[in-house]
This record gives sequence, structure tokens and C-alpha cells, in this order.
Amino acid sequence: MRIITLLTDFGTRDWFVPSMKGVILNLAPRARIVDLTHEIPPQDVRSGAFVLAASARLFPKGTIHVAVVDPGVGGERKAVTVKTRNFIFIGPDNGALSLALRNEEVMEIRSLENPRLFRQPVSNTFHGRDIFAPVAAHLARGVKLSSIGPRLSRITSLPAAEPSVTKSVVRGEVIYIDRFGNLITNIAAKHLSSRAVIQSSRHLIRGLSTSYSETKRGHAVALINSLNLLEIGVCDGNAAKFLNASVGTPVCITQR
Amino acid sequence: MRIITLLTDFGTRDWFVPSMKGVILNLAPRARIVDLTHEIPPQDVRSGAFVLAASARLFPKGTIHVAVVDPGVGGERKAVTVKTRNFIFIGPDNGALSLALRNEEVMEIRSLENPRLFRQPVSNTFHGRDIFAPVAAHLARGVKLSSIGPRLSRITSLPAAEPSVTKSVVRGEVIYIDRFGNLITNIAAKHLSSRAVIQSSRHLIRGLSTSYSETKRGHAVALINSLNLLEIGVCDGNAAKFLNASVGTPVCITQR
Amino acid sequence: MRIITLLTDFGTRDWFVPSMKGVILNLAPRARIVDLTHEIPPQDVRSGAFVLAASARLFPKGTIHVAVVDPGVGGERKAVTVKTRNFIFIGPDNGALSLALRNEEVMEIRSLENPRLFRQPVSNTFHGRDIFAPVAAHLARGVKLSSIGPRLSRITSLPAAEPSVTKSVVRGEVIYIDRFGNLITNIAAKHLSSRAVIQSSRHLIRGLSTSYSETKRGHAVALINSLNLLEIGVCDGNAAKFLNASVGTPVCITQR
Repeated sequence: MRIITLLTDFGTRDWFVPSMKGVILNLAPRARIVDLTHEIPPQDVRSGAFVLAASARLFPKGTIHVAVVDPGVGGERKAVTVKTRNFIFIGPDNGALSLALRNEEVMEIRSLENPRLFRQPVSNTFHGRDIFAPVAAHLARGVKLSSIGPRLSRITSLPAAEPSVTKSVVRGEVIYIDRFGNLITNIAAKHLSSRAVIQSSRHLIRGLSTSYSETKRGHAVALINSLNLLEIGVCDGNAAKFLNASVGTPVCITQR
Repeated sequence: MRIITLLTDFGTRDWFVPSMKGVILNLAPRARIVDLTHEIPPQDVRSGAFVLAASARLFPKGTIHVAVVDPGVGGERKAVTVKTRNFIFIGPDNGALSLALRNEEVMEIRSLENPRLFRQPVSNTFHGRDIFAPVAAHLARGVKLSSIGPRLSRITSLPAAEPSVTKSVVRGEVIYIDRFGNLITNIAAKHLSSRAVIQSSRHLIRGLSTSYSETKRGHAVALINSLNLLEIGVCDGNAAKFLNASVGTPVCITQR
Repeated sequence: MRIITLLTDFGTRDWFVPSMKGVILNLAPRARIVDLTHEIPPQDVRSGAFVLAASARLFPKGTIHVAVVDPGVGGERKAVTVKTRNFIFIGPDNGALSLALRNEEVMEIRSLENPRLFRQPVSNTFHGRDIFAPVAAHLARGVKLSSIGPRLSRITSLPAAEPSVTKSVVRGEVIYIDRFGNLITNIAAKHLSSRAVIQSSRHLIRGLSTSYSETKRGHAVALINSLNLLEIGVCDGNAAKFLNASVGTPVCITQR
């Protein structure tokens, strides 16, 4: 009853996701498959990495997390598996796994190079079906990590988007926008006091709210969200549109 | 092998839904999770209540239904669990459960107030992950209802949208619009004869059809749908656009 | 632990899909339900048939595939079940199953006519819930195929969309467009050499690429995709928009 989670940018309308599930169930009929999401914007490795980091750590120990956001499929990038104290992660070595691994103690990294664990013939465009799904299924069935391929010493990491912090000013940025248009920033709770003034574009928000329900409709608010990050939203509205913000938009905090 | 269903307005692209699943599987590894839907329009309690009522009753006895459409998260509204003869329902006490409960014999209502059954620390913005999911998992594992919190005598109900019925005229309204643009009304089969004339906006439909397949393309038709309610649709078209209708649009029936 | 897959055009926001799942789990509590997709464009039998054919064959032997894209629901079309050497297929007899069956050895075809296997009363508009789901569940539980209804000698097939092939020219067409806007054609790998010149609308592509990652951003490329078919895409772009193409758009290959 090993759990295999799937995170991709494949969407749910085509044959991509069910193909991966068919391959997994064929090799590991007792595996439990859980979708994290398949709605990562196409080829947006950073968003995929963010959603994986936010949700993967909540799963039971031993879960196998497969993340396929893979603009380089068919090219030179490696495919990797990373065993941590709690989980196994599988995906292209392009940074998609790197944010989740910051929460984890990494035990072993392997390059996926054993063609006997792949679906044959391996296509050039769909490694989700031909490499990542079958390797996950084999690991769920108990195949040893050492049979996957050679050890690697490190994987590719996304550049850290750390805020710059001085005594009176914190400069960060929007790192993710959720489906409601809320802006999630890289500024953590510890950087903020309740007297902070939050500025994005030319919009000022004075102080932190504790939830959206205490706010007037249509007003922008800042709060510490469920990931312990500063989030800017608009009550019953869309902050990304209201503030004309996107991933990378600067957010500046001043506090007295 | 207890079934836990999830209905939310979280969408499927962010970390919200997989976070709830991770929490559930951590606490109740043998629970079976079934998505009702996560595409309820944001904060649309009435639509959530409608979809829950339409589908929850088809599940096996003992199913735990979790419904999180929750504009008041972080505010004063209570969180509740309702045990009925057939099911357990869990959600915010804002009416989201109330339409489903009309089909059920209510046995016991409890307020969710036992912090030992919550994920700690409880965030202000994501009770789906921190309260509703873990309580559902604990109940699936056999935790007693009495440990959840104090008894309540009643829950919040949505205002009934009952049609007004006289001998010759039935006045109702659109209560839900499905993804095809079909208009579902609050007028039940028993209110209608095959000679009914259905009027919405300035459009008249004479008589009831039995299915969309017997209709000419692009023509509006009225029929008794699979929920035994009057539905107005357009063959191969979108009735909501064609008739410029939305939830609340009046529908009037005259019959001789 | 029999697997039942579901493919529909119902979308995931309404009560349709969870209703089917509730009915199945009520009758066959141990069945495993896997979504192929519910995002087939409304009533687009051909797209449904394509996705079913591409993914169904990857599932374990014994899987029951239910495909409900059903513009004729409530009308005269039959409902059928087809047992092949590997699978059982269930759906309306309108061609939706026919592309998948080309990969299969058909053993037995039956018309769904035994009302004791249906949910009663059977609605006119939702056979997914009232006929297809319960019949699938009964078969998963071991009900014999002979109890379903009378044998049929054949089912409805979609017209074959075969390319015309001469020594120097192959004329085919777009048969499916995926969510990325890539154009999948009915031209198979065997018809092509690496020196092919691919023409769609007035756009020419010289030669085949092996993957999208080797291409310049915004450029159209042709490659053999993971289904072994000619696919036209635009690196980091949408080929359907770029080439103004839709299903049925001609694609012409010349090679020296």
C-alpha cells in the first residue's frame, strides 16, 4: 500500500496523466496513487517546486513523490531520484525537487540510468510515462535504490529567493500566485511585526490582518498565511489583478 | 477502508487539496479519499451545498463527507460535524451542509472544539488542512463523536428556495448552472404537466422534452433532469448565455 | 481490487462524476476507481475515443474502462459492453470505444439491457450514473457478462481517418490537439523520413526533430510523438494558434 504522488504540468484533459497511472498500476497493482496537481503552468519549474514543497511533507513517511515539470525532456538534463529520511523524490534534475528538499535530510541521490526499469521503447517526449512512472512503481514494489543508476553528489537547485533584511526594511518578492489571485511572498513571519507597512507597486498596506474574514470587501490585506509566509490578498477579490502583480514583483516592508 | 469525500472551492492547481490528502493519509492510512469536486466557485456556499446534496447520498453508508466552502475562515463561524443515519458530514457551519441534510435523518451535531484532534499550530486561513481534514481522519480511525466537542442543537441552514405554487402558475428560480450552461431550477417534477409553458426572461418553451437528443440544435428545451428538477437547456448550446440567465433568475410556469 | 476507469465529458465541477463514483462504491466497495479524464470537450466523441485509445491499453489486464461521451443519451443509440482479451469496455454505442478496440482482440459484445443491473429509476439524461456506472460495478463484483443483455455482432465505429500515401506525398490531417496546442496527426512514423517537408496551412517545416528541447523558442517543429504519430508543435508556444489549425486541418508531407 505504498503511496505514489504525482505532480505535473500535463493538465487533466489529455492522455498524459492516465497513461502514467496505467503504467504504475501495471507494475505495482497495490500502489496508492494521489494527485498533488497536474495544473502547474506549462514548464513552470518554479511553481511546481513551490507546490511540491508545500504539500509533499504532509504525506506519510515512505511516500514516493514524482514531480514532472520538464521543459528539457529529450535533452541533456539528468533524471534523478533522491532518498531522504522521510520520502523518495523522483523527477528531472532541473530544480523542481529542490525546494521540497530544503525541508528534508537527504540520504542518497541516484541518476535514473537503468533501462530495464524503463518502459520500452523510451519516447523522446514523454518521460513521465516511460521513465518516471515505471521507476516509481519499481521502487514502490521494493526494487533497491542501488539498482536505479549511479550515485550523484548533488542535484540542481533553483536560485534561492531570499529576502534582504535590514533593521528597518525587508525587501522581498512575490514567489507564487494562487488560484484566488493571492500573492505569496518569500518574506517569512519572523521578519515582520504587526506594525509593518507593506508596499507592493504603489499600494500601501498598514499592519497585518489575521484572516480574510475580518476585512472589508475589495480591500487589500496582508497576513501570515498557512505556510508561515507573508501573503497579500484582496477580500472577495483578486490581488494579482488589483495590484498588477506577478511572480517576481517586489514587496517592501518598513517597520518602526 | 472508510471513505472520506472532499468538496471544496480550492481548485486543483495549488497545494490546498493535496495538503488535506496528506494530512488524512498520515492519520488514517487506510482511508479511501474520493474527490466530489474542488471547482465550487470561490466562496459560493450555495453551489457547494447543491453539489454536496446531489452526490453525497449516493455513497456507501458510513462515508464521511467533508465540505469546505468557507468565506468566514478565521472568523466567528463554528466548525461542525453532523452524524446522520447514513453518513458523517464535516464542515464550517455556514449552510454548506444544510441542503444535503434535508435528505438525511440527523442523529447528532457536534462543534469541533477539541484541539488535540487538530493539526497544530492551527493557521488562520487554512482550516481544511488544520481542522477539517484531521478531524475526518480521526473519525475514520474510530475516534468517538463525543470526543469532538460539545453537542449543538442545530446548524445554520440556507434559506429555502421553494417555488410558489398556485393552481395555474408556478414561480421558481434558477438555483444552479452546470458546466454545460444548463439551468437547474427549484421546480420539481410534481409541479409540472407535459402541457406546461415555461418562461424565463422573455423566452417561452412549450411543453417538456424527455431528453436533449430529441431536440433541434440550438433550440431551448425544458425537461425533468436526473435530480427530478426542471432543467432548461439548449441542444448543443449554452442556455445560461442564450437566455442571459444566472442563479436567481425567475422561471415561471403556466399550465392549463 | 478490480480497477474501473472513467472517461467522460462531464467536467469536474458538477455532481456528475462524484455521483458515478458513489454508485460504483456502493455496489463494489473494493473497486479502485481511476479517472482517465473528464475534460473531453462536450459531446466530442472523436476526442474521447482518441484519449481512451491512447491510455486504456496501459492499464493492467482485467481493467474495466467506462467511457461516457454521449450526445445521444435518452435517444435510440444502444449501450454496450465489449470484452476483449485484456479489458472490458463499457459505453454508448456511438464510436467512443472504437479507436481503443483497434488495439484489442474482441471476444464478446453485449447490449446493456438488463434493468436489474441499472440504478432505478433510470433518468433520461444521466445514464452515466444510472446505467454505465452500476453495470461496471456489477461486472467488477463478478456478475457474468451473459447476464448483461443480448449479444451483438458489431459496434459502431468512427470513420477511419487514414492518411493517403503515395511514393512522394503523404496527405493526412490533424486528429487531436492537446492542452499545449500541439497538433497530433494521423500520419505514423513509418510514413516519414528525416528528410520530410511538412506543410500545414502555408507553413513549411523541414525535417523532423527528436524533441522540443532542441528547438528555438517560438519555432514550429515536427516530431514523432510518444504515440508514434507525427506531431507539430511550437517550442514554448501554441501550434494550434500559431498555425491557425484545428481538428481536420490538412497536413501534407513531401519527401525526396
